[in-house]
Amino acid sequence: MSIISEKPDLAFSRPMMGIVLGNTKISTVPGISAAGPTPELTLATSALDGEIIVNGKITSAPVVPVSPTGCATPATLTRAMAELCGLQPFVVNAGLAFPPTYPAIDVYGACGGDPREGDAVPDAEALYLRGKTLGTFLGEHSDFLLLGESVPGGTTTALCVLRALGYTANVSSSHVAHPTSVKEEICAAVTSRIETENITEPIAVVRAAGDPMMAVCAGIAATYPGTLVYAGGTQMLAVAAVVKALGHIPPKLATTVYVRDDENATFEKTAAEIGTTAWFVDPDFGNIGHPGLARYCAGEVKEGAGAGGALWLASMMGHPKAAIWEKIREFMKDYS
Amino acid sequence: MSIISEKPDLAFSRPMMGIVLGNTKISTVPGISAAGPTPELTLATSALDGEIIVNGKITSAPVVPVSPTGCATPATLTRAMAELCGLQPFVVNAGLAFPPTYPAIDVYGACGGDPREGDAVPDAEALYLRGKTLGTFLGEHSDFLLLGESVPGGTTTALCVLRALGYTANVSSSHVAHPTSVKEEICAAVTSRIETENITEPIAVVRAAGDPMMAVCAGIAATYPGTLVYAGGTQMLAVAAVVKALGHIPPKLATTVYVRDDENATFEKTAAEIGTTAWFVDPDFGNIGHPGLARYCAGEVKEGAGAGGALWLASMMGHPKAAIWEKIREFMKDYS
Repeated sequence: MSIISEKPDLAFSRPMMGIVLGNTKISTVPGISAAGPTPELTLATSALDGEIIVNGKITSAPVVPVSPTGCATPATLTRAMAELCGLQPFVVNAGLAFPPTYPAIDVYGACGGDPREGDAVPDAEALYLRGKTLGTFLGEHSDFLLLGESVPGGTTTALCVLRALGYTANVSSSHVAHPTSVKEEICAAVTSRIETENITEPIAVVRAAGDPMMAVCAGIAATYPGTLVYAGGTQMLAVAAVVKALGHIPPKLATTVYVRDDENATFEKTAAEIGTTAWFVDPDFGNIGHPGLARYCAGEVKEGAGAGGALWLASMMGHPKAAIWEKIREFMKDYS
Repeated sequence: MSIISEKPDLAFSRPMMGIVLGNTKISTVPGISAAGPTPELTLATSALDGEIIVNGKITSAPVVPVSPTGCATPATLTRAMAELCGLQPFVVNAGLAFPPTYPAIDVYGACGGDPREGDAVPDAEALYLRGKTLGTFLGEHSDFLLLGESVPGGTTTALCVLRALGYTANVSSSHVAHPTSVKEEICAAVTSRIETENITEPIAVVRAAGDPMMAVCAGIAATYPGTLVYAGGTQMLAVAAVVKALGHIPPKLATTVYVRDDENATFEKTAAEIGTTAWFVDPDFGNIGHPGLARYCAGEVKEGAGAGGALWLASMMGHPKAAIWEKIREFMKDYS
C-alpha cells in the first residue's frame, strides 16, 4: 500500500534532497507562525530544523522545535524519510537569524526584514545569482533534486509575493485557527507599497516583500539541469510563481493532502494559474497512533521543512506505507 | 604530451573538486606568507581565492590576490583547470576572516589564532565532526574527490602540526627567500607548549597548533567512501599525518614538482614516513611564456589553492599539455 495514489513517470538515478533555511522578522509578529513556542522563538526554529535534517538530532540546544500545542517540527519527518531513502540531506543557509552548528551550504544572506517597514531582502539579486551558481553545482552531481524550505512566517511572505505578482491566492497556515486577518493586514500594507513604488520585476518583488529562501530557490530553479521538484506547500508555490515570472518553467511540487485540503488556502487553483501542478501524499497520520502527528490531520502544521516532499520521495523510491510508518514511529520515539 | 609522467590506475566516473578555505592569524606575522601584498592583507586572500574558484573572477573587490612581487594567486590555475574539466568546483569555509560573497559549504568555524598565544583552533573537535558529516554527503554524490586548501600562513601551522606529531619534517614556502628562521622560532615555541601540556591526541594537536582547514579536511577523510586525493603540498601533507594518527589510511596527494623539488622542504621523505605517496605534475611553466607563471619555477608560490592537484586532474582526465597551456593562457589574460 502506497501513500501516493499514482506514481508519476519520473526516472532518476542520482537523487538529492535539500532544504533551504531562512528567517523573516515577520514570524515574530504575534499570531503569524506556529513554528515555535513563542513568536520570538520562531526565529530559532529553522536553524534547529536544519540540525535535525543534517545530524538526525539536536544537541546544540536542550529543546526540539515544537508548536505552541506541542507538535514536533515536520523536520523530523524529513530526516526520517531521508534515512529511509539512504540519503544524507543538505541544507542551505539562505539567511538565518542564528548561525548553524552543522555544515550548511551558505549563500551569506541575512534574516529577512519586515516588508511593511522597507525592503525585506535587500540582497535578493545577489542571493538569486548565488542560487544560480548553486543550481549548476548541484546539477553536476545529481539528476533529481527535491528542494524544500524552513522559513517560519514564510506563508505570510508567500502571500505578499503571490499577490504582488498578480495572483488572488490565499495561503495555508501552520495554525489551526487560521490567522487570515493578521496576514491580510500585513499583505495589504505590503502590496500597497509595491504598487506605489511600481515594483514588478520578480526579484525586485522578492526584495520588497519576500524572504531570503525565495531568492535562493528561484536561482537554483533557473540553472538546475535535472528534474527539480519543490517540496512544500504555499511557500514553494510562491517561489514557483517567481520562477514563472522570470520566464522559466516553474518546477512541479510535492506536498501533503493536508495542504491541498486546507479550505482557507487555494493551493491547487493557484498552482494551475502559475502553470504547474503538484503531487500529493496522504500519510494518513490520523491512524498512525502518534498524538503529535494526528494533529497534522486536525489542521496544525500540515507541512514544512520539506516533509511532504520527503514522504513523497520515499514512496517514489519504492517504500510502502507500512515501512514509512514504521520508520516515522521509530524516529519519533525521541519526539513524543 | 602530458604533464604527468605516469598515469595512476584510478577509475572514477563522478569526480568532484573542492577547496577548503581558512585563515590563521599566523599569516600576519611579517615574513611568513607571500599570499598577499602585505602581511595583514594575507587574511583576505583565501576568501578572494574562493571567489575565483567558484565564480571564475573577482567582482567583490578591485584586486586579485598577488604576492609581493606580483604573482597571481594559484587559484587562477585551479579555476582554469576546473573549466577545462567541465567541473564546477565547490569551496568549504572552514574559518575565514572575511565572509565570502559566493556560495560556500560552511562549517561555521573561525579564523585560527596564533598558536604561540593559546589554542589555535578552539573548536577543532566540532569542525572535525562537521567534516565527517560533509564527507558522507559528498561521498553520496561522487566517487572521486580532489580536495585542496587555501590558508595563507598554513605552511607554518603545517610545520607545527607535523613536528608535534613526531615528524622531523621541513615544509615548503611560497617565498623565494625561505623564511625558515621565523617559522622555526614559531614552531619551537608551539611544540614546547604542546610538550609541556602533553598534547598527543591528533585533533587536540590541531586545536593547539593547527588551523581550521586541517580539522575539516581530516574529518572528510574519515568518512569519504570514494577515492580521496589531497591536492597540495606540505599543508595537505600535515593533514594526511593527522588522518594517519587518527588511525585512518592517509589519502594520497597530488602536487607540483616545484613542491617536490623544494630543497628547503622534505616533502617526499615526510610523505613516506606518513605512509602515503604523491603524484607530481610538471606544468613546465618556465616555457609557457607568462612572467607570473615563470616565477613559479623560480621558487615562488609553487602550489596553493589546489592548483597542483587541479593540473594533475586535468591531465588524468585526458587533457594534453597543449590544451592545459592554452586554457591557462586564455584564463590568465585577465591576470597578467
